[in-house]
Amino acid sequence: MIAVKGYAAQTKDTDLAPWNFERREVGPHDVQFAIDFCGVCHSDLHQIKDEWGGGIFPMVPGHEIVGRVTAVGSHVTKFKVGDLAGTGCLVDSCRVCDNCQHGLEQYCTNGHSQTYNGLEQDKKTPTYGGYSDSIVVHEDFVLNIPEKLDLAATAPLLCAGITTYSPLRHWNVGKGHKLAVLGLGGLGHMGVKFGVAFGAEVTVLSTSPKKEEDAKKLDAHKFVVTSDPEQLASVNGYFDFILDTVSAEHDYNQYLHLLKTDGVHICVGAPPTPSSIVAFSLIPGRKSLAGSMIGGLPETQEMLDFCAEHNIVSDIELIDMKDIQTAFDRMLKGDVRYRFVIDMATL
Amino acid sequence: MIAVKGYAAQTKDTDLAPWNFERREVGPHDVQFAIDFCGVCHSDLHQIKDEWGGGIFPMVPGHEIVGRVTAVGSHVTKFKVGDLAGTGCLVDSCRVCDNCQHGLEQYCTNGHSQTYNGLEQDKKTPTYGGYSDSIVVHEDFVLNIPEKLDLAATAPLLCAGITTYSPLRHWNVGKGHKLAVLGLGGLGHMGVKFGVAFGAEVTVLSTSPKKEEDAKKLDAHKFVVTSDPEQLASVNGYFDFILDTVSAEHDYNQYLHLLKTDGVHICVGAPPTPSSIVAFSLIPGRKSLAGSMIGGLPETQEMLDFCAEHNIVSDIELIDMKDIQTAFDRMLKGDVRYRFVIDMATL
Repeated sequence: MIAVKGYAAQTKDTDLAPWNFERREVGPHDVQFAIDFCGVCHSDLHQIKDEWGGGIFPMVPGHEIVGRVTAVGSHVTKFKVGDLAGTGCLVDSCRVCDNCQHGLEQYCTNGHSQTYNGLEQDKKTPTYGGYSDSIVVHEDFVLNIPEKLDLAATAPLLCAGITTYSPLRHWNVGKGHKLAVLGLGGLGHMGVKFGVAFGAEVTVLSTSPKKEEDAKKLDAHKFVVTSDPEQLASVNGYFDFILDTVSAEHDYNQYLHLLKTDGVHICVGAPPTPSSIVAFSLIPGRKSLAGSMIGGLPETQEMLDFCAEHNIVSDIELIDMKDIQTAFDRMLKGDVRYRFVIDMATL
Repeated sequence: MIAVKGYAAQTKDTDLAPWNFERREVGPHDVQFAIDFCGVCHSDLHQIKDEWGGGIFPMVPGHEIVGRVTAVGSHVTKFKVGDLAGTGCLVDSCRVCDNCQHGLEQYCTNGHSQTYNGLEQDKKTPTYGGYSDSIVVHEDFVLNIPEKLDLAATAPLLCAGITTYSPLRHWNVGKGHKLAVLGLGGLGHMGVKFGVAFGAEVTVLSTSPKKEEDAKKLDAHKFVVTSDPEQLASVNGYFDFILDTVSAEHDYNQYLHLLKTDGVHICVGAPPTPSSIVAFSLIPGRKSLAGSMIGGLPETQEMLDFCAEHNIVSDIELIDMKDIQTAFDRMLKGDVRYRFVIDMATL
C-alpha cells in the first residue's frame, strides 16, 4: 500500500484535520499522481457535515484534483511519469451499463464510484479525495490536463467546469440563444464563461446588485437583480435557457416565467429541501424543468481541450491547507470570487 | 346578430341551465356551423365552478365541437355549406407573434381567444362554447372533420385528442420508446391510442387495478398499479417518457424515478395545488419535468387526418343535454369510459 498524507473529517461533527492513510499500489491500469492543487467545492462541506446522509468516515474530501504523474501501471498507455493529470468527481463506474457505454459514467445505472465519500466498484473499499498529497486512479478516469493553462485555476474545471459545460452542450446552447445564469458563484461564473464562449447572449440573474461589475468582467451581456420586481418583469418570457446554479431554496415558478415557449430551466444546483412547482408554470409555453449532473469522462476531456483552446479557467483564490476552515466559513457567506483552490504544497 | 340556444352557468354557484344568447353575424372570413355534438371536458367543470379564477359569466362551456356548416362568409375558401366542421379550445389568436406565425396558437404570446370563458381579440367580447346549437368562428380556427369517422366520437379529439397527440409528436415518441401513460381517463385513453399508433411500447400506470382490462382493450402492452410498491419498483428507470394526464394531486418525484436517463415526464393534467419537486429527482439522470398544452391549428388538423387514416376516435358515452349534471357527477367519480359527449339534438 502507498502511504498518503491528507486532511480528513473523522466524523460529521469534527473539523478537517491532518490524517495519514493508505492508497492501493499502482495496478497495471492505474495512474498515480502527486496532487498539486485541489479545488474546494460547496459539496465538500455538505458531505463532511453529512448533510446528504450516508457519509463514509473518515472522509477526505476533494474532487477537483490536478497534479503530475509519478507512477503508471504496466498497461497504461495514456500517461507517462511527469505528465499533467487530473481527476474530477468520479474514479470508476460499472463500465457495462448503457450509460457507461455511451460515456455517461455520471449516470452509471449500477452506481459509479465517487472520488470521495464513495466506494470502489468492489462496493467495499472507501474512496478518499484530493485534500491529500497523491492519488491512484484507473487511467480511464484520469484526464489529460493541458500544459498551457494555469494549473491551479484548472482544478475547478473538473467539477464546476464540467457541471456547467455539459448541460450547455447537451441542450446545444449557443448562437441565437438567450441564456440566463442564475447565481454567480463557483458554478455560475463558469456557466457565464462557457455561455459566452458558445456564442449565447448571457444574462446573469443574481439577488446581489454587487455582482453586476463582476458579471461584466466575465463578459456577461446583461445583469438582472432578481429581488427587483421591475427588473425581473423586464425579462418575462425572454430566455431560451436558464442555467440554475443555486443550491439554496428558491422559487422555480418565478424563473419559469422568464422562459420563452419551449424554454428549459436546467438545475445544476440542488436545494436541500423540496421545492414547490405549479403545473401551470410548465404547461402554457411547453416549458421544462430539467436537471444535469457533472459530465462523463469523454465530455470532461472535451471540455478541458475546449478550455485550452479558448483560454478558459476558473477565477480562483489560492489558499493554504491549514486555512480550509476559514475558506469554508467564507464560502458559506458567498465570500469567494469564485473558487478556493488548495495549494497542496502547503499540506 | 344570430340567435343561439345553449346551456350556461349564470354564476359560479349555479348549475348549467338553458340560456338564449347571440353570436355575431357571419363575417367575410367566418364559418357558421350547427353543432351536432360537443364533448364534456373536465375543465368545463373547473371553469363553471370558477376554480381557476377569473371566470366570465354567464358561461357557456364546451370546446370539443363538431357539426355541419350552415353558412360561410364571402371570402371563405376552406369550407362550404354542408361540410363537416369542428372547433377545439381556440377560436382566435393574435396571429402575429412568433408562436402564432409557427402554428403554435396555443402559446400565443399576446393571448389567444379561448372558445369559451375567454375574450375575442378585441379583448372585450366574451366567447361562448359548444353547449349550444350553433357557433360562428373565423375559418382559420375551424378544422376539417373527416367524414369517415364516427362524428360523436370525433368531438373529443379536439381537446383530449390533440392534448395527448401534440406532446407525443413534439418529443418524437415512437418505435423503440417505452411510454407510460399516467391516468386512464379522457386524456389518458387517447394517449394510449396515439402511443400505440406511433409504435411505442405503452404501459398504463393507474391507481385502479380495475382499469387493467380496459388498458388491454386499448392495446396497451403493460399495466402497472401505482399503489402497489412492488409493481412500481419493477418499472424503476424503465420509461423514456411519462405522459401524465392526472389533474389530481400526485407526487412527481415518485414517477420521475421510473424514467431512464434523459427521460421526460410530460404534464398535460394540471393539479389544482402546487406539487413538491426534489432537485435530486431530476439531476441524476438528466431528467425533465415538462408541460404541454393542447396543440396549434396545423397540428390539430394533422391529428384529425392521422385519426382518419388510422381509424382512431375517442371511446364515448353519448348523453342528452338535460343530463349534464349527472354526467359531471359521474365524471368527478371517474365513472366514465372515457368521454361524455352531448348529443346537441337533445338541446
